[in-house]
Amino acid sequence: MGKSTQIRALADALGGDGLEVVTTREPGGSVGAEAVRDLLVEGGAERWSAAAELFLLLAARLDHLERTIRPAIGRGAVVLCDRYWDSTRVYQALVGELGLADVDALHERWLAPFRPALTLVLDAPVETGLARARPGRFEAKGADFHERVRVGYLRLADAEPSRFRVIDAARPVEAVTTDALAAVRAHLADPEPS
Amino acid sequence: MGKSTQIRALADALGGDGLEVVTTREPGGSVGAEAVRDLLVEGGAERWSAAAELFLLLAARLDHLERTIRPAIGRGAVVLCDRYWDSTRVYQALVGELGLADVDALHERWLAPFRPALTLVLDAPVETGLARARPGRFEAKGADFHERVRVGYLRLADAEPSRFRVIDAARPVEAVTTDALAAVRAHLADPEPS
Repeated sequence: MGKSTQIRALADALGGDGLEVVTTREPGGSVGAEAVRDLLVEGGAERWSAAAELFLLLAARLDHLERTIRPAIGRGAVVLCDRYWDSTRVYQALVGELGLADVDALHERWLAPFRPALTLVLDAPVETGLARARPGRFEAKGADFHERVRVGYLRLADAEPSRFRVIDAARPVEAVTTDALAAVRAHLADPEPS
Repeated sequence: MGKSTQIRALADALGGDGLEVVTTREPGGSVGAEAVRDLLVEGGAERWSAAAELFLLLAARLDHLERTIRPAIGRGAVVLCDRYWDSTRVYQALVGELGLADVDALHERWLAPFRPALTLVLDAPVETGLARARPGRFEAKGADFHERVRVGYLRLADAEPSRFRVIDAARPVEAVTTDALAAVRAHLADPEPS
């Protein structure tokens, strides 16, 4: 979906605005979490059950929050993260059928504060996204799986329009960057829109 | 504490009784869980927070249950596991101060059925246990930590005498094996004592 390219472009532009920007990713983003990531992305598509995958992701997210995200926010930086909580809600809770309520309750009890201020969904038809992605354990799951992922993100965005922005990512890279940057700048200018 | 030696002796004796015995260990006991184990035992004592450690252990335990323990129990085998749920209750819930109620609630919600029928605590003074243990991340935590671990196990055993047996492991190996084997055979003869 061109996430890496877009995050780099956002970081450059926001850095030009005089902000400290920390770019990071999940699973990963800290030494411990990157080691957990290796377990998640290696091996066959059925290596982990949805619940085992959820707990690995929570362990990685905790470490990432403790060692990278909270320290960065604490010193006033803007944190741009490639995948985060809403990805877990889509992959494990909706597609993996563990349930949104239980997955969210785990976060509230064990990871708070953890909520992202703004989630950008770079939306494109499944064929477009798969053609751009590098091969890996998740890409091996098939077009039907990825269609359910797409529907999941759009459902979450629909339920929380104030926290989500859906951006049409089937357009040229520059048009996507323009919209993504506008969304982030609008959020930073007015963090809690009414 | 001589756990490996005792489990081997128990497995030999129970196998001689005509039972199928599966010996396993935690963290670990399945391919995925052993990979998580490597993350837990490597690195410095403060590599993971107590909560991150808890989620890694839960991921490993889920995999272990799904791939090793439940299939073995399903075909009627006796499963002997070196460390299990009660270790998490001691290390993360009591010593790590995450709280027994929350740790147990996670198990009931995400791992059921998971309860061990019988937990043997091989109890010895901390100096004796440390002198016998191989160096590792947990052994590096110091005598005070290990004293709190010991107190934790004894507290759990005290609270659930029907599920625990505390065995004095400061005696010769053969005496410990005799008591451990008697406890397991008594349990197998009468799985739910009144």
